[in-house]
Amino acid sequence: MPLPTPLRLGLVGTGRIGTAHARVIAEQVPGAVLAAVADARPGAAAPLADAYDAVAFDVPQALIDSPDVDAVVITASSTAHSDLITAVAGAGKPVFCEKPASMTLAEMDRALAAVEAAGTTLQVGFNRRFDAGFVAAHAAVVAGDLGQVQLMRSLTRDPGLANPAAVPPWTVFTQTLIHDFDALLWLNPGASPVEVYATADALVAPDFKDAGLLDTAVVVITFDDGARAVAEASFSAAYGYDVRAEVFGSAGMVTVGDGARSSARFSTSRGAHHDTARGDVELMGEAYAGELREFVAAVREDREPAVTGRDARRALAVALACVESVQAHAPVAVTEARAVTR
Amino acid sequence: MPLPTPLRLGLVGTGRIGTAHARVIAEQVPGAVLAAVADARPGAAAPLADAYDAVAFDVPQALIDSPDVDAVVITASSTAHSDLITAVAGAGKPVFCEKPASMTLAEMDRALAAVEAAGTTLQVGFNRRFDAGFVAAHAAVVAGDLGQVQLMRSLTRDPGLANPAAVPPWTVFTQTLIHDFDALLWLNPGASPVEVYATADALVAPDFKDAGLLDTAVVVITFDDGARAVAEASFSAAYGYDVRAEVFGSAGMVTVGDGARSSARFSTSRGAHHDTARGDVELMGEAYAGELREFVAAVREDREPAVTGRDARRALAVALACVESVQAHAPVAVTEARAVTR
Amino acid sequence: MPLPTPLRLGLVGTGRIGTAHARVIAEQVPGAVLAAVADARPGAAAPLADAYDAVAFDVPQALIDSPDVDAVVITASSTAHSDLITAVAGAGKPVFCEKPASMTLAEMDRALAAVEAAGTTLQVGFNRRFDAGFVAAHAAVVAGDLGQVQLMRSLTRDPGLANPAAVPPWTVFTQTLIHDFDALLWLNPGASPVEVYATADALVAPDFKDAGLLDTAVVVITFDDGARAVAEASFSAAYGYDVRAEVFGSAGMVTVGDGARSSARFSTSRGAHHDTARGDVELMGEAYAGELREFVAAVREDREPAVTGRDARRALAVALACVESVQAHAPVAVTEARAVTR
Amino acid sequence: MPLPTPLRLGLVGTGRIGTAHARVIAEQVPGAVLAAVADARPGAAAPLADAYDAVAFDVPQALIDSPDVDAVVITASSTAHSDLITAVAGAGKPVFCEKPASMTLAEMDRALAAVEAAGTTLQVGFNRRFDAGFVAAHAAVVAGDLGQVQLMRSLTRDPGLANPAAVPPWTVFTQTLIHDFDALLWLNPGASPVEVYATADALVAPDFKDAGLLDTAVVVITFDDGARAVAEASFSAAYGYDVRAEVFGSAGMVTVGDGARSSARFSTSRGAHHDTARGDVELMGEAYAGELREFVAAVREDREPAVTGRDARRALAVALACVESVQAHAPVAVTEARAVTR
Repeated sequence: MPLPTPLRLGLVGTGRIGTAHARVIAEQVPGAVLAAVADARPGAAAPLADAYDAVAFDVPQALIDSPDVDAVVITASSTAHSDLITAVAGAGKPVFCEKPASMTLAEMDRALAAVEAAGTTLQVGFNRRFDAGFVAAHAAVVAGDLGQVQLMRSLTRDPGLANPAAVPPWTVFTQTLIHDFDALLWLNPGASPVEVYATADALVAPDFKDAGLLDTAVVVITFDDGARAVAEASFSAAYGYDVRAEVFGSAGMVTVGDGARSSARFSTSRGAHHDTARGDVELMGEAYAGELREFVAAVREDREPAVTGRDARRALAVALACVESVQAHAPVAVTEARAVTR
Repeated sequence: MPLPTPLRLGLVGTGRIGTAHARVIAEQVPGAVLAAVADARPGAAAPLADAYDAVAFDVPQALIDSPDVDAVVITASSTAHSDLITAVAGAGKPVFCEKPASMTLAEMDRALAAVEAAGTTLQVGFNRRFDAGFVAAHAAVVAGDLGQVQLMRSLTRDPGLANPAAVPPWTVFTQTLIHDFDALLWLNPGASPVEVYATADALVAPDFKDAGLLDTAVVVITFDDGARAVAEASFSAAYGYDVRAEVFGSAGMVTVGDGARSSARFSTSRGAHHDTARGDVELMGEAYAGELREFVAAVREDREPAVTGRDARRALAVALACVESVQAHAPVAVTEARAVTR
Repeated sequence: MPLPTPLRLGLVGTGRIGTAHARVIAEQVPGAVLAAVADARPGAAAPLADAYDAVAFDVPQALIDSPDVDAVVITASSTAHSDLITAVAGAGKPVFCEKPASMTLAEMDRALAAVEAAGTTLQVGFNRRFDAGFVAAHAAVVAGDLGQVQLMRSLTRDPGLANPAAVPPWTVFTQTLIHDFDALLWLNPGASPVEVYATADALVAPDFKDAGLLDTAVVVITFDDGARAVAEASFSAAYGYDVRAEVFGSAGMVTVGDGARSSARFSTSRGAHHDTARGDVELMGEAYAGELREFVAAVREDREPAVTGRDARRALAVALACVESVQAHAPVAVTEARAVTR
Repeated sequence: MPLPTPLRLGLVGTGRIGTAHARVIAEQVPGAVLAAVADARPGAAAPLADAYDAVAFDVPQALIDSPDVDAVVITASSTAHSDLITAVAGAGKPVFCEKPASMTLAEMDRALAAVEAAGTTLQVGFNRRFDAGFVAAHAAVVAGDLGQVQLMRSLTRDPGLANPAAVPPWTVFTQTLIHDFDALLWLNPGASPVEVYATADALVAPDFKDAGLLDTAVVVITFDDGARAVAEASFSAAYGYDVRAEVFGSAGMVTVGDGARSSARFSTSRGAHHDTARGDVELMGEAYAGELREFVAAVREDREPAVTGRDARRALAVALACVESVQAHAPVAVTEARAVTR
């Protein structure tokens, strides 16, 4: 169906991921245009705005309030996410927020309340749900093809750790593994996480261990249906960005993620090889487009998007329990009550 | 860079492939809009035009002449292609034409002359050149990673033959294998085909053999550098659309095409399996977008596109030599001279 | 080199794995013959002995003492292993023992002392070390191709749980995952396990949970070099026997195990699929042959075999720490001291 | 079942393949021993005979006549094969002969007649029929899982051409592709080849083209059921020994052959890779063992082996038609009549 006018999106935050989203909006999301770009750092918005013929703002709130902006995409620093969600909701506009939607459950609850009060839409950036492989895996689980879920795996390995000094201590859980937590919860629908055991270390950049940086982590999640899931992360994969998952059930298994850049397979005197995707944008490019298409569709159809603020809260609760588990050097319960009162 | 105004594309032909291109233009080609749709069948253009808020024409020439159309995409029936190219060139506009650009070399030469006289642009729809796997293979050949090319393979297997009665006799060469011929010529740059041996049969729909329909074919091409290439086609692959290629050289090999729908791999009591792409649009979706992005870029940058009319002529010469080879039941030379005088 | 006379092997234990070993000895191990078979159950040895023209014994000690037996292969029930090792060592003969070599560290130490006192040879049946994929992975680790080991994975999934009532409570750790523990220790040479966290449940046969049967388990091992390993087991894989491993280091990764029965890949209207190995003997057949060839070679060359009793003790220490971890619902240290005093 | 005495095999020919077969007999074929080795070159048999504690003969006929030899394995030069088959048959003993069993159809017919007159057994060394992947493919064809066979592919690429001067002119057809011809005939049971078109060149060692050496070839076979098969060979694959096949039918496809040395898959900064088998013995090791096990079983059970002299004659007829096709530069019929009168 023809759409009478494109949805005018405002983007807040012009870092690496903001730049990637801007490009996706311009090139891969029909029915939407990048109308405005804001960044709290003076002058930072202009280059990206110019590149896409959008209006630049130095004050995010001004973009949020602009009558030329229909909906807002938040790609600012993680600590600013929940306040920005609250601000956009306050303006009565739909909001797409990169993960993590919040750094604490209390802030998350305030943001969720603001969205609910405004009767508007919040989608959070768990892009794996839009990857064709993850979609096929989820469909198989939902269809019962794998039987009762018993064992799960998910991993995220990032190709590089450019600036260890700039990485907040618990990033491996709140920003990296939160992707895996959301994927695992989504792939075991109907079940809830009841306990986590987490262990983490500084193996990639050991010099930063004293500063609290943990770059390698393993998490075991126990669900209330008995299923166990293992999530694993590293900040330095020599071979590129690596995202994989596996669901093993009583009737079978599905694995997702091959990291291949294309179908080309080379054989030479050194053996057989294929190229691997180097970064998240390359590996998950179609998923980045898919999540923004879903956001635009949900706004137009005035419905709840495929990934909600409640989903983000659930994944965050697991991430925060992991932090506690590392601190306690013990398994830790994941309870709604405890989570809410943090 | 921001593009001041989108390129307004006119689409001629609203069949299956025209509909697919319209969707690609609307959803995946930045900097272009589908401004007009024409179909020589009265009333046929309207539904597709309406779906994308474009203007409908019942007379292709009217679309070609419209001041609201900057460039034309031809997806009409194959026999109409070369005349339409000539008409668009006559209007001084750039043209993208689905393969085959022509059914005879004489018509092809007329169309090429018209394009050259108008100083405009012609791109032909050999979409494999825009598939990531084929691109990687070509890059390896050009870089010399495979050494001297010695043996090549290419195949096309279509999942279904809906209406055998509607398929012209030599379609397997002029419309299906022409994709493979272009890919093979592209993957052995610097070499020219000197001879073909072709054999074909009606194995899928034997009842239509008397009517001249050939649905299964094998072709051996000999190049002037000694390399041999095998191209193979079938009109009925039970498992879906299948496009693959292989280049074997003195230093190694590359294979392209795995047919996988996603990275999901399932294991059940019946073994391990993954889903395969069912149709060309699913399998080659990104390549369809890539070729139209290239066309828009070539028009904007006023340069020759990645796939030219001369490329189309070379592939057509091979296809027509195959027809002769089947008729002669013998290998047949592929010569420019002979080809020109056909 | 021609071997003047074949090594005469005596086999103790005629269950499933004993039968498999007998066949391997007869068909795949040059330089050895199956000379004798014993089973403590009266009459049980005869059928297998007859099948291979070997002498049957109802008393294992009689086989051990027989002058017609040069070396002994123990495939009796796990609880009898360490006493049998001690007995064979007492007779001054080389011994190959299926894993686990013992059920407690104290018994293991007695058996090791007996072997050492006799100056004879003990090899334990960790067959993964003889699988071509595991061998290639180990070689890459040792060569430093993967850099510093940081994250590891290993899993064992058995296709069926025929008789849950017959499975001792901690089998998942002491008999199944002990394979994974040995593989992980071998694949991270130079490092030692310092802590384990284990969680287990009865998901396959929940009715037997009260009887103590645990059929699903996940273990996290922390090494003294900071590396974390995850081992995972299930007693019921719908798709067949599944053995895989992964080593991720600072310079790269290796994965092992594809479960494919052959190189045949089928594509039909249901997609693409390949058959998977149904049982351990099918999947690990070459490795079963390889470990017995190694045993025969070690005996002939009067040298230590590739898998020693000390290796078995290390894997057992991890398995027993897992039992403690499940009981304590907490991570547990793996120390030599504690282990020895159990 | 216990075998009272091992079958005593005599081996004629101690070149590369004879040495490989000797090792297979000693290490992988239960119920048989290498009792004698002969080579027409004086002194050539001794080293191999000594290595396996066998008796050496300088005169093949003496080995054939020896009362200590129950059956004979022929691995001499190809031109000697058919006379040796005739000689062994004359002694009334079973014979296993490496491919090609003969260089002409007339000689082949004399050898077949001698075998038939003696009422003994002849198996020819088409080892692909014993590769697990080929076996699975054949089973699927026979079971009708692929429907009506329409298109087939088979290829052989050898990793090296050590001494081009020593290679007879038509070797690519009579010694290399004959493997592919047998496999293709076996994989399309019930159908007969009616025509071949072959093209060949000297691309690997062009300096030897004038001497008649052809190192690269492509063959198209047309069967009487309409199926087309393509066979392809090269004498120099940079990445190792490569044997693959594909059968495409009305209901689906099977592909065989992945060239992988093990299940280990490495990922590093250069991408993902796995090692490939370097030579035929490495790639086809299990198949070499399988064919000799089958020979021993057929002899013991006094039955026809899985690959007969008639099979060898059929494959030879195709190879010889290929030679004619290259000479005629045209497709050539494959007929029994013509073949017999050559």
